[in-house]
Amino acid sequence: MPVYKAPVEDAMFLINDVLDINKYNNLPGFEDVSADTVAAILGEGAKLCEEVLQPLNASGDREGCHRAADGTVTTPNGFKPAYESYRAGGWVGLPAPVEYGGLGLPAVLNSVMQEFVSGANLAFGMYPGLTQGAIAAMLEHGSDEQKNTYLPKMISGEWTGTMNLTEPHCGTDLGLIRTKAVPNGDGSYKISGQKIFISAGEHDLAANIVHLVLARIEGAPSGTKGISLLVCPKYLVKEDGSPGERNTLSCGKIEEKMGIHANATCVMNYEEATGFLVGEENKGLAAMFVMMNEARLAVGVQGLAMGEVSYQNAASYARERLQGRALSGVKEASKPADPIIVHPDVRRTLMTARALNEGGRALALVTALQADIHRRSPDAAARQAADDRLGLLTPIIKAILTENGLQNAINSQQMFGGHGYIAEVGVEQFVRDARITLIYEGANGIQALDLVGRKLPRDGGRAMMAYLAELNGFLKAHEADEALKPYVAPLKVSAGHLQQATMWLMQNALAKPDNAGAASTDYLQLFGLVAMGYMWAQMAKAALAKGDDAFAKNKLVTAKFFADRLLPETGLRLARVTAGAGDVMALPAEAF
Amino acid sequence: MPVYKAPVEDAMFLINDVLDINKYNNLPGFEDVSADTVAAILGEGAKLCEEVLQPLNASGDREGCHRAADGTVTTPNGFKPAYESYRAGGWVGLPAPVEYGGLGLPAVLNSVMQEFVSGANLAFGMYPGLTQGAIAAMLEHGSDEQKNTYLPKMISGEWTGTMNLTEPHCGTDLGLIRTKAVPNGDGSYKISGQKIFISAGEHDLAANIVHLVLARIEGAPSGTKGISLLVCPKYLVKEDGSPGERNTLSCGKIEEKMGIHANATCVMNYEEATGFLVGEENKGLAAMFVMMNEARLAVGVQGLAMGEVSYQNAASYARERLQGRALSGVKEASKPADPIIVHPDVRRTLMTARALNEGGRALALVTALQADIHRRSPDAAARQAADDRLGLLTPIIKAILTENGLQNAINSQQMFGGHGYIAEVGVEQFVRDARITLIYEGANGIQALDLVGRKLPRDGGRAMMAYLAELNGFLKAHEADEALKPYVAPLKVSAGHLQQATMWLMQNALAKPDNAGAASTDYLQLFGLVAMGYMWAQMAKAALAKGDDAFAKNKLVTAKFFADRLLPETGLRLARVTAGAGDVMALPAEAF
Repeated sequence: MPVYKAPVEDAMFLINDVLDINKYNNLPGFEDVSADTVAAILGEGAKLCEEVLQPLNASGDREGCHRAADGTVTTPNGFKPAYESYRAGGWVGLPAPVEYGGLGLPAVLNSVMQEFVSGANLAFGMYPGLTQGAIAAMLEHGSDEQKNTYLPKMISGEWTGTMNLTEPHCGTDLGLIRTKAVPNGDGSYKISGQKIFISAGEHDLAANIVHLVLARIEGAPSGTKGISLLVCPKYLVKEDGSPGERNTLSCGKIEEKMGIHANATCVMNYEEATGFLVGEENKGLAAMFVMMNEARLAVGVQGLAMGEVSYQNAASYARERLQGRALSGVKEASKPADPIIVHPDVRRTLMTARALNEGGRALALVTALQADIHRRSPDAAARQAADDRLGLLTPIIKAILTENGLQNAINSQQMFGGHGYIAEVGVEQFVRDARITLIYEGANGIQALDLVGRKLPRDGGRAMMAYLAELNGFLKAHEADEALKPYVAPLKVSAGHLQQATMWLMQNALAKPDNAGAASTDYLQLFGLVAMGYMWAQMAKAALAKGDDAFAKNKLVTAKFFADRLLPETGLRLARVTAGAGDVMALPAEAF
Repeated sequence: MPVYKAPVEDAMFLINDVLDINKYNNLPGFEDVSADTVAAILGEGAKLCEEVLQPLNASGDREGCHRAADGTVTTPNGFKPAYESYRAGGWVGLPAPVEYGGLGLPAVLNSVMQEFVSGANLAFGMYPGLTQGAIAAMLEHGSDEQKNTYLPKMISGEWTGTMNLTEPHCGTDLGLIRTKAVPNGDGSYKISGQKIFISAGEHDLAANIVHLVLARIEGAPSGTKGISLLVCPKYLVKEDGSPGERNTLSCGKIEEKMGIHANATCVMNYEEATGFLVGEENKGLAAMFVMMNEARLAVGVQGLAMGEVSYQNAASYARERLQGRALSGVKEASKPADPIIVHPDVRRTLMTARALNEGGRALALVTALQADIHRRSPDAAARQAADDRLGLLTPIIKAILTENGLQNAINSQQMFGGHGYIAEVGVEQFVRDARITLIYEGANGIQALDLVGRKLPRDGGRAMMAYLAELNGFLKAHEADEALKPYVAPLKVSAGHLQQATMWLMQNALAKPDNAGAASTDYLQLFGLVAMGYMWAQMAKAALAKGDDAFAKNKLVTAKFFADRLLPETGLRLARVTAGAGDVMALPAEAF
């Protein structure tokens, strides 16, 4: 059976040594976050994930969710008490404001906990995960009355949340939404329509489910400018705040999927269901984007989690499985064969996973810290800069952490040979589960378009220029440092590739937008490698400062592996970016 | 529901225009293989695959195989009549010698048909596919009596075959095999032991199942030098050639797997089962390798097939799914949105799949042709050269065609957005099914070791030197040709990378074998890109000669896409090869 050990030590190193969050103790919520507090919180979280959630992962996959004829949905055996433990521990409201019952702790810590939960049980993690997204949207766009009605219950985890965007004919292109909302005249609306792929749309874990629904208010303009966000609870809320009358919405079906079987993916039918406008009429897309950006970072972290748990299982198998002898001579003569970890190709696979996981984690956490600064800093310029960075890195994190996660899951499965393909061994589940992360919350191709088409040119390229300035500053400050040279010198080459690619886009995409589209995925991958390489250089610096312990030494080995073997891919990506759209668009559509 | 159209036109182009098999009409079996015959055979085969096998693919996946308490196994609904059609069509014996009832046709045609069958229904194709491997081993190592007893029935498809290698504690390292064979004194043996992962080990499609089993004859030396190959039929064969007494072997369990559910993957228990030695005592591994090499090429072709069918479904979805507008301006104003094929990133994905599929098919067929020359040429030098080439390219084809197949399946699924993750849409099955091809018949890491550790140094590097000489000859002969320049010039750069990598291995792997191991996978990938690039250059040449039709024009576009966007990866692979084993081996095993 698969194992999982939450990577507490690595998270602590990032938080304390690399990000040095002590520096931010002027921010609200950061005052009391000492290294000891972080250790205590992450230790508690790790325990819950390892002891309660992970043991339900394989059984949850086998059992799946079940919808009864009356539309009620039951989660797999054990999920209810597990959710109750999770909820009671205060984890749903970890980063939420204290005034609504949250713990008000940094998003950085929440991001670490999201990884632990997902690594232990991805399908489980989606129930509270979606609630966190809904909380964020409600906090930013809800009225005071709505906040008071919904937030305390969602933050305590008594109620869960969902996001309802997709319809059968539209996913990416939300301008095509048909679900309609008709005003009742009393400030409420009747919502009618069908939504699909609604994660956690119906289940038995919570007393109420708060659906955030994109719909078109009668008479609204067509396209994305006519879409509004409405809150539509499963049970309408009574004056005293408790769940009352059942709303006229229901789960029509749960999907049979490739993976995440323990999460209920619902078709939701709204039949004149009562809903209430959140934020301004026809400004629903902007409101939903708060939730979506939150979710995109979280999905990147899910990918990371899949990469980590897969790696851990492959590593422990590789240390135990006896097969063949080392090329460099017999290593364990008393045994019938050496453990397969003696083989360089097995090592290469494991080192690749390690380098991508640790680099990905660093990138996720430095970005989560931007979310904290954006939300909490008293300094407007700092808030702006953090928001720029957050916007720039979000599509990169969503796409590269999920792609690396799937690739690690596949490569780790490969270590098991034929056994990896057998369901009861348990590692094929990681591949099936990881697969969704590349798709939902904006398929990765959409992330690439978001980066190239929106995030890069926005505000005259301000976010990108600030990023490159910081990176070049770091390179300049450290390039003479001999100890850092193995990490900084290759990064300088790759940073040059990123600059060239960016320049090429500026020169070639405006006149011919297809050049941007054809370059988008390779540009994102190139940027992702550089962003990770930058984090690896910072980790190497922190490890050198940390001294001579095993953790620091291993970190430097992995940093060098990343610099020597993974970072050089930027050259290939640059070649593809600058190849242009010509070959890509040359065939007539009917030739495919 | 997924669609599949066998790529007959592309296969015909390769056979007639690129390989020009008319040139080989001096070989037995090739005399009458005119373009018309090829068209007729492939047309028949395509029809069977599209109309009979493909419609059973999704249902077979859902139903799976079932083992009853008595150990009998039933295949999914419809498989029995489908197998009967397949068998009656003579497809099992397509390349087998006429004297045993085969059609004696070229392996090249068989390879095409293997692709069609696998593209239509991978799990189905394994039943006759394994039989073909068993036929090959029996032909090369069986006694005349054994050949007369088994071959006609296997070639007609009345009986099927299996290969029994793996045991719970050993897969790759066959020296650890424990299954034993005790002589009965009458030339027969009693076989006892447990074999796992036996594809098609038990089923209801054939009157008898001919198991080829690796076992250790009592008193044999330990390790791989004490392994023998035995034939062990499910029903012992009577004097008159018909199945008689039930042998004491049985299917103890069928595995629940990630995919290929319609193929029975069996645990086989041998309890003093009667078997007969095939070939020489203690030379079983060499005999099994005949079957395994055959199977490795076939598995590469399975990977290709998964890549092709995935691509076809993604392409047809991309032409139909309306979502968003083209970056370059609205394309279909009368519709609510443009089809997603207008988006360059969608095109890039589809073009990548096309380039890898068509290049992979060319590589598979040129290698199958070497098998024909090796087996049929009257010229000893030609036979030797063909065998060298076959040995050199087999691990590359197994590994890169399966990896590209899985990647194409994943990328094609991605085109469907959330719909791709839903079981009933049917494309997630391609990912699950394709996944096994990287694992079985020698996991791809083993292929890389086989290439670098065995195939490259063998006979003083003769096979590799011949390959490079031919490639350099082609480059020299065509580098001045302006029309070919877009394909030949990049190939020359990449061929240089292959030469540098080969040189590096020669200089660095002998003294430190870990350098070979650490480089093996990247070297294989580099070689695979060059080998495919070489085929693309030859295809471009044939397309230019073919003139101005749409097929030839599309081929040239795809050739250029390959040269501009995929081939440059050789530079990255070279950097990794020459990075050496240092970083890879630096961590202590317990650090993982």
